[in-house]
Amino acid sequence: MRFLRSPAVGEDLAEQKATNITWHAGQVERRDRELLFGQRGVTVWLTGLSGSGKSTIAVGAEKVLLDRGRHAYVLDGDNIRHGLNKNLGFSPADRTENIRRIGEVAKLLTDGGMVAVTAFISPYRADRDQVRAILQPGDFIEVLVDCPLEVCEQRDVKGLYQKARAGQIPEFTGISAPYEPPLSPELTIRTHTQPAEESAQQVLSHLEARGIVPRA
Amino acid sequence: MRFLRSPAVGEDLAEQKATNITWHAGQVERRDRELLFGQRGVTVWLTGLSGSGKSTIAVGAEKVLLDRGRHAYVLDGDNIRHGLNKNLGFSPADRTENIRRIGEVAKLLTDGGMVAVTAFISPYRADRDQVRAILQPGDFIEVLVDCPLEVCEQRDVKGLYQKARAGQIPEFTGISAPYEPPLSPELTIRTHTQPAEESAQQVLSHLEARGIVPRA
Repeated sequence: MRFLRSPAVGEDLAEQKATNITWHAGQVERRDRELLFGQRGVTVWLTGLSGSGKSTIAVGAEKVLLDRGRHAYVLDGDNIRHGLNKNLGFSPADRTENIRRIGEVAKLLTDGGMVAVTAFISPYRADRDQVRAILQPGDFIEVLVDCPLEVCEQRDVKGLYQKARAGQIPEFTGISAPYEPPLSPELTIRTHTQPAEESAQQVLSHLEARGIVPRA
Repeated sequence: MRFLRSPAVGEDLAEQKATNITWHAGQVERRDRELLFGQRGVTVWLTGLSGSGKSTIAVGAEKVLLDRGRHAYVLDGDNIRHGLNKNLGFSPADRTENIRRIGEVAKLLTDGGMVAVTAFISPYRADRDQVRAILQPGDFIEVLVDCPLEVCEQRDVKGLYQKARAGQIPEFTGISAPYEPPLSPELTIRTHTQPAEESAQQVLSHLEARGIVPRA
């Protein structure tokens, strides 16, 4: 049912596949959106302990990108756990499905030409590798947000570590459930040794170096 | 964990809420993205029988919007049923969950400042009303893609009606399962009385009239 690509969008017609079309207006493809946005779509997947600074980096990166006229969107607990994934709990199966759905949405955003920035603990390597697998090579940038457990626990921004230590939260990552760090992340950000703006800048510099967004 | 809104994005600071922030870089909000995109985020929800022309309208609208430099993204069976919702079947519960998830993704895209165009039969009024309910007032544009069943069946682009008549597809909308049309859709498009480009133009004109995208 999709239209042929139109010459108007600046592409050749080598990819024509359908013959039963009714209107040669041209299908919009990812590359057309990317040309319009002046950037490449990508998923920046932040992973790390609770309190390591994932959300801070995500919104910081979104801000520096927007200030450059680039298009980014953050997926985090706020807009996912109360929405798309509100029917999921914290069992192993639900955690896996949680990450799977987030990965699929990030893939849609990436196809939409956006820089999708996800900020979830995502403690299991297999779950993250599964997201990497559904994305095209180069579309998945795994970022280890590295911060010692002691520092995260001392920050305890949401008071969760205290509750976890008191046994009020079962299977809390780092306390009573494992965290499996990436073996070869595209980027590692150490949030306990640098200010937040530097961490956000690190993401931007990485995207520039990869040619995903143009240099200023 | 989110930052304060920054004066740099052209907004006043009346909405400051947090005091425990570490970096005043400003949180990106929907309005900031909309200013950058030069449009409002919105969900255009196409509903209608199989073969009524939903996908054709969706990709046509996406194309005319892109040609105007506007940002749209189509959600349809191609990118949803094989991805986010690949673990759902066609039972009533799964159909409802299918639409719920699509609605949540459309809500994210809308928050992201995009024109989200969805192309799903979405036969049940309650399911569509649920999507309307999770979106802010004015963010949900329900579009009835109106085409007589006989015409859809005659087109039978995917050969599904033939299979449904032969009893090979159970609970096929319009044949062996109900289609509940919207009672007061924001827009009705009659695909059997006008060419496809006119239908796409109808969507664009509606978005212009509502001030969602600027007039050319």
